[in-house]
Amino acid sequence: MRRVISRKEAVELLASSGTISFNKKRVGLAEAFGKRAGEPLKAPFDLPQLSRSTRDGYAVNHLDVKGVSEALPAFLNVVGEVKIGEIPSFSISLGEAARVFTGSYLPNGADAVVMDEFVEESSGVIEVYRSVAAGENVISAGEDCLQGSTILNFGEKISVGKLGLLAAYGFDSVNILDVKVGIVSTGDEIVSPGSQLSSGKIYDINSFTLYALLKKWGANPYIHTPVPDDLEMLKKVLEELLDNSDVIIFSGGSSVGTRDHTKELFKLFNGKLIIEGINISPGKPTLAGWVKDKLVFGLPGHPVSSVVSARVFLIPVIERILGIDGEPVLYLPVLSNLPSKLGVEEFVCASVNEKGVFPILGKSGAISRIANGGFLIKIPDGVEGYKEGEVVETWSI
Amino acid sequence: MRRVISRKEAVELLASSGTISFNKKRVGLAEAFGKRAGEPLKAPFDLPQLSRSTRDGYAVNHLDVKGVSEALPAFLNVVGEVKIGEIPSFSISLGEAARVFTGSYLPNGADAVVMDEFVEESSGVIEVYRSVAAGENVISAGEDCLQGSTILNFGEKISVGKLGLLAAYGFDSVNILDVKVGIVSTGDEIVSPGSQLSSGKIYDINSFTLYALLKKWGANPYIHTPVPDDLEMLKKVLEELLDNSDVIIFSGGSSVGTRDHTKELFKLFNGKLIIEGINISPGKPTLAGWVKDKLVFGLPGHPVSSVVSARVFLIPVIERILGIDGEPVLYLPVLSNLPSKLGVEEFVCASVNEKGVFPILGKSGAISRIANGGFLIKIPDGVEGYKEGEVVETWSI
Repeated sequence: MRRVISRKEAVELLASSGTISFNKKRVGLAEAFGKRAGEPLKAPFDLPQLSRSTRDGYAVNHLDVKGVSEALPAFLNVVGEVKIGEIPSFSISLGEAARVFTGSYLPNGADAVVMDEFVEESSGVIEVYRSVAAGENVISAGEDCLQGSTILNFGEKISVGKLGLLAAYGFDSVNILDVKVGIVSTGDEIVSPGSQLSSGKIYDINSFTLYALLKKWGANPYIHTPVPDDLEMLKKVLEELLDNSDVIIFSGGSSVGTRDHTKELFKLFNGKLIIEGINISPGKPTLAGWVKDKLVFGLPGHPVSSVVSARVFLIPVIERILGIDGEPVLYLPVLSNLPSKLGVEEFVCASVNEKGVFPILGKSGAISRIANGGFLIKIPDGVEGYKEGEVVETWSI
Repeated sequence: MRRVISRKEAVELLASSGTISFNKKRVGLAEAFGKRAGEPLKAPFDLPQLSRSTRDGYAVNHLDVKGVSEALPAFLNVVGEVKIGEIPSFSISLGEAARVFTGSYLPNGADAVVMDEFVEESSGVIEVYRSVAAGENVISAGEDCLQGSTILNFGEKISVGKLGLLAAYGFDSVNILDVKVGIVSTGDEIVSPGSQLSSGKIYDINSFTLYALLKKWGANPYIHTPVPDDLEMLKKVLEELLDNSDVIIFSGGSSVGTRDHTKELFKLFNGKLIIEGINISPGKPTLAGWVKDKLVFGLPGHPVSSVVSARVFLIPVIERILGIDGEPVLYLPVLSNLPSKLGVEEFVCASVNEKGVFPILGKSGAISRIANGGFLIKIPDGVEGYKEGEVVETWSI
């Protein structure tokens, strides 16, 4: 019997055995939120472009107010005012100050701002009672972001903060990756939600969990209606999906028949079946390879198994092909003893609370384990479970 | 001077001083992902409806294979086969077995499945070499989810797993909350991304970070073009937003002029200004109240301040009005010393890696602090900072 390869080996083997040139698409800034960057972006200018006040007060040279106090104030001539949204038309010399507001640019010669509450103004002269350091109450040119620094990496997920940074640089559209993923559940018993559930049938779960997982990642998933376990029909669906997807996911019963059909599809389409089983639990009977330069996955049919396989194998494969890092994992104390078999990398459903991560045990067929959790605890193949309180690697779903 | 109230008091005070009847909207299942449930849902039936096999093998009564081994196998008559997607038309008695596949329903009389590898079949009789416990290799009726149990709470975010659970019950559409949030940046210096940046102006950041934050939460945010710091224009915009929003967010320079305008708006519209400052840093100059049964917020203008105020105050207010819990916080070791002032609840930008949470220090005007992190460390008002390695409360943005 073939040795079942480790997840890491499987990711490497599959990702290095082919390549995908994902399409790119330019979308409006708001629409880009949560998507993946289609190109790296560098800061086109210093942010802020010029030093700005972060308070209402007076722009000064800090040397002028060194060591001042209520008993020994500095007296400075106010030589102008900088309104918000204006470039200062004047500069200040030693002994001078300028009225500024939160957001005002500083005139040349000023390097700090004294706040209103430490100043008294009377007929064009201010008394300053408090010293300020150079740069105090000021955000200096380039302090937020320097011209030429990277503001977005290729393939990076566009987060709340990154969307803000793109806005700060005036981008109103962004080039994003359009990773088209076709998803289809297979099995004679599977029917779409919304249809009549005749006796013996069950509703399609996997298409929706996989859709959500891929959508959350930043891809562009598409759900095909479920297909019976029939080679001719599977062939037709694969043909259709090859035309409009970069990645194709079949999820089906892990019963031998279904697996045989998926394998047969690779042969029929002259594809390369690279992965036949991975040493993970659940998710072991995962198949994957290439058909006509498209990534094709055959995921197990149990709802937990297919989500685990997609989260810990399929997504890392896409990330490896793009050359990007995955979402950072968390290390949290486990809130109960967690037994495990040696020799297999296990992923256990879990929920996270303020105390740590709590395993949700049960069968791979139970979707409630994912619905009630949203996390996975990883138990490496060389670890025989954890004791309550041990810190464990936690993946978000 | 008025005492500035704590964040908790402010949330309670504002949320209990009015109410919003959020609209609901029925959307397709896939579209419901990431949105908020508009109604609680109970499981309409047991999941699975009948006990199903989780393996290819033979359905048996576990009493028939108690204590068997290779030396002492049990012999059982195979009285039928249950195809996937069929309801069994027969039952088994002691001494009998039925051929089943992964996903097959169990015939009456069977309570476990022995896997193919521990069975040999020959002319209608199987030899079983391995015992099974009752329920082994079976997912029993209701084991995943019992009829009548809650599968979705009102206001809950529809996660990957919840979407799967809804699919499992055949829902092809979901009633979601349509929390309409109108967002507008104010200030003479603010221009929309994509427009020409004339000298002295800066691009609107806050509209996009607030949009993303609310979108991620599951609301339906809408960005209005920025408005100069002019009372008449602000009045017009508020009128417009009152017509099509449940929640309205102004974010503007925290300069005194802007705050005065926001306060003035409450008077002009006969609103109730409830919150004038919160004891948090950054985010202190937050204003909030009610105008014509709509929640109206005046958030500070600094990019970090407005995100913090929205994340730790505005969102908790909406959650409190809906009567739902916020996202659970994480407790992680802090990776550097973190000084803080006593007497104010501080939120420090941070990033998370496998070792813990790393503070990103800097000014509230620096959007890069959020772009490079995506988390906030909370320092309670009674804590004078943390030492490296201490476990700290971490909020995701």
